[in-house]
Amino acid sequence: MKIVVLKFGGTSVGTIEKIKNVAEIISNYKKKKYEVIVISSAMSGVTNDLISKSKEISRNFSETEYDVLVSSGEQVACSLIAGRLIHKGLKSRSWLAWQIPITTVGSHKNSRINWINKNKIIKFLKGGGVPIITGFQGINTDERITTIGRGGSDASAIMLAKFFKAERCVIYTDVEGIYTTDPNILKKAKKIRSISYEEMLEMASLGSKVMQPESIQDARLNRVNIEVRSSFFKRPGTLITKKKNINTNRIITGISSTTNDSKVTFVGVKDKPGVAASIFRPLSKNFINVDMVVQNISANGKETDLTFTIKNDDLRKTKKIISENKNIKFRKLLFDKDLSKISIIGVGMVTTPGVTFRMFQTLANKKINILVISTSEIKISVLISKKNTKKALTALHKEFKLDK
Amino acid sequence: MKIVVLKFGGTSVGTIEKIKNVAEIISNYKKKKYEVIVISSAMSGVTNDLISKSKEISRNFSETEYDVLVSSGEQVACSLIAGRLIHKGLKSRSWLAWQIPITTVGSHKNSRINWINKNKIIKFLKGGGVPIITGFQGINTDERITTIGRGGSDASAIMLAKFFKAERCVIYTDVEGIYTTDPNILKKAKKIRSISYEEMLEMASLGSKVMQPESIQDARLNRVNIEVRSSFFKRPGTLITKKKNINTNRIITGISSTTNDSKVTFVGVKDKPGVAASIFRPLSKNFINVDMVVQNISANGKETDLTFTIKNDDLRKTKKIISENKNIKFRKLLFDKDLSKISIIGVGMVTTPGVTFRMFQTLANKKINILVISTSEIKISVLISKKNTKKALTALHKEFKLDK
Repeated sequence: MKIVVLKFGGTSVGTIEKIKNVAEIISNYKKKKYEVIVISSAMSGVTNDLISKSKEISRNFSETEYDVLVSSGEQVACSLIAGRLIHKGLKSRSWLAWQIPITTVGSHKNSRINWINKNKIIKFLKGGGVPIITGFQGINTDERITTIGRGGSDASAIMLAKFFKAERCVIYTDVEGIYTTDPNILKKAKKIRSISYEEMLEMASLGSKVMQPESIQDARLNRVNIEVRSSFFKRPGTLITKKKNINTNRIITGISSTTNDSKVTFVGVKDKPGVAASIFRPLSKNFINVDMVVQNISANGKETDLTFTIKNDDLRKTKKIISENKNIKFRKLLFDKDLSKISIIGVGMVTTPGVTFRMFQTLANKKINILVISTSEIKISVLISKKNTKKALTALHKEFKLDK
Repeated sequence: MKIVVLKFGGTSVGTIEKIKNVAEIISNYKKKKYEVIVISSAMSGVTNDLISKSKEISRNFSETEYDVLVSSGEQVACSLIAGRLIHKGLKSRSWLAWQIPITTVGSHKNSRINWINKNKIIKFLKGGGVPIITGFQGINTDERITTIGRGGSDASAIMLAKFFKAERCVIYTDVEGIYTTDPNILKKAKKIRSISYEEMLEMASLGSKVMQPESIQDARLNRVNIEVRSSFFKRPGTLITKKKNINTNRIITGISSTTNDSKVTFVGVKDKPGVAASIFRPLSKNFINVDMVVQNISANGKETDLTFTIKNDDLRKTKKIISENKNIKFRKLLFDKDLSKISIIGVGMVTTPGVTFRMFQTLANKKINILVISTSEIKISVLISKKNTKKALTALHKEFKLDK
């Protein structure tokens, strides 16, 4: 069987007209002789409405009942999709997680799928049926409804693609794919044909909000090919797959930017073991996420400077924590907010010398000052002044030939 | 265990505030040492909204998917009620029909409950829990969700009361109980303390829209005591129970009226076997419900007059059917529309002579002409001109001392 898993997000099933469109998409895959497994989210707005109801009932609404409550949204969407396919003369039915079953482990509101019983679905597929499965949910060993904490319906789709060995898992969403950079900032941004899991992970965690990093990680670990595309256009989207499937000699795949970073610098802290830990321990305890960390080489062997970045929203809290921790010794404390982190990402850079130099040179030519640098195998990030974001993106996009 | 089943209709759980009120009602029963089983309908408006969505998807929406779709409404209401009870410190949880399970027979959209597995619920009750069970639904042998065709959540509540041998099944609705007559027509109408199943069946099918006749019939067959009351007032409602539980010497329990009847009279039809059947067969085939039927005594042994009543809405169709059936022979055809059927109902009339006479005399005193009469053991119905409805109700209500 040539199986494809199609996942439709909330905006793709947001109205009756859009659900009819989804049924068209599904029936086109059937015409191409695919066995189609469909996963749907709730119609857009529904889940938020249910959550706000739960908050009106109790500020501390029961987590088990929360799962019962919000899982109803997918049930509605799936029955409407199945109903539409039946109307079009196809064999279809909704499958609720408990009917399959899809079982989960973990706590309520934060479960993950550990098993999918394939028997009934395989039988249904062999009979020519199109199963429409509720995303974002499962049941636990107590036969209670659970919801998937990270990745939601995307996670459901990826696990189904894994268990059914699907050729591809298509994530239908409200964007056309993954872009070389944010098209809202740079009009020249181009849709990427294919991208590796590793690059996508960097793109996802650095500002491309198309998929949650957890779902991409799931797909990577389970070798599931993902296509991200829009349900409103017929154009192909972006394929997310393993490195060796990507036949390209490009150096850089994409450039991401985040624009709400702050920089904190401790000037003149003791250069001895344990100092960094004493600074980061209270931040971590208060759930403040520290991103880039740079410790300068100590000139005299006694004192050094320590710089790190946090989100703007955490700046006030961070200042308070530092002022309250009297055992952190330093000479001077500097803050710098409204910075932007620009990252160039690409598996190609590993085998290409001089990428770092080209990035710095490009920014220097535009007189953009680099405040902090951090690098990984497939990524180089620099912190710059927020006002230079667009200028930097434009220059780097051109330099690495992403304009095509 | 002293068990009570509480059923909340859509208006009783129509808003978050009303759900909080429902939680108060439930917790008061717990304080009185009852074991409480709760059945809830969907929040008012939700089911209609889902049904209209299904119609937008297809005029001929799949019946199996219809059941999946509309059953989601009760899931939402039950999780919110359970969530509120947990917030108040009670032990509670929602139970979906498949988790119990509640099994049904019959077709989709029109199933009825044939079995309830008591084990899990009994265990939960013994542990001090308040189960909140989705009304109006069950699962069939294929493990598909089904909905109850007749009586909806009331039918679920009555079956639960039967299986758990509940002391009482309390139907919380938006009226305070059953009234001696429609309080919208006659302000003097009084709430009835207790009424027999048989009387209630007559009241229900003749215009008191509080409960569907099928549910009352279910309760009667299963000897379930029902109390109908409002969730918005603390006053007791009306108890529906078996005749011998009713300790009263009243003759008439209530008076019902319907105000959209039409009368059809065939003058001069052959007085021989098969004539009535030849008239009613085509009507029955066309789903026209014939109510009262009167055939006059034949004066000459050859010809007779046949009169029957139908709903105003069916009059046009009936005329067409009669005109198209040339094998019905008669001398003249008379139609009379906008009539009203007034019925006095009471188990007391069986043992009380002269009730019929008193009814006719009362109407005659008010110069109200009686067009058709039909009687049963516990009911006398008369057809009168619609404009006399209120006058007749007022006079009869007084004559049979229902004003108190």
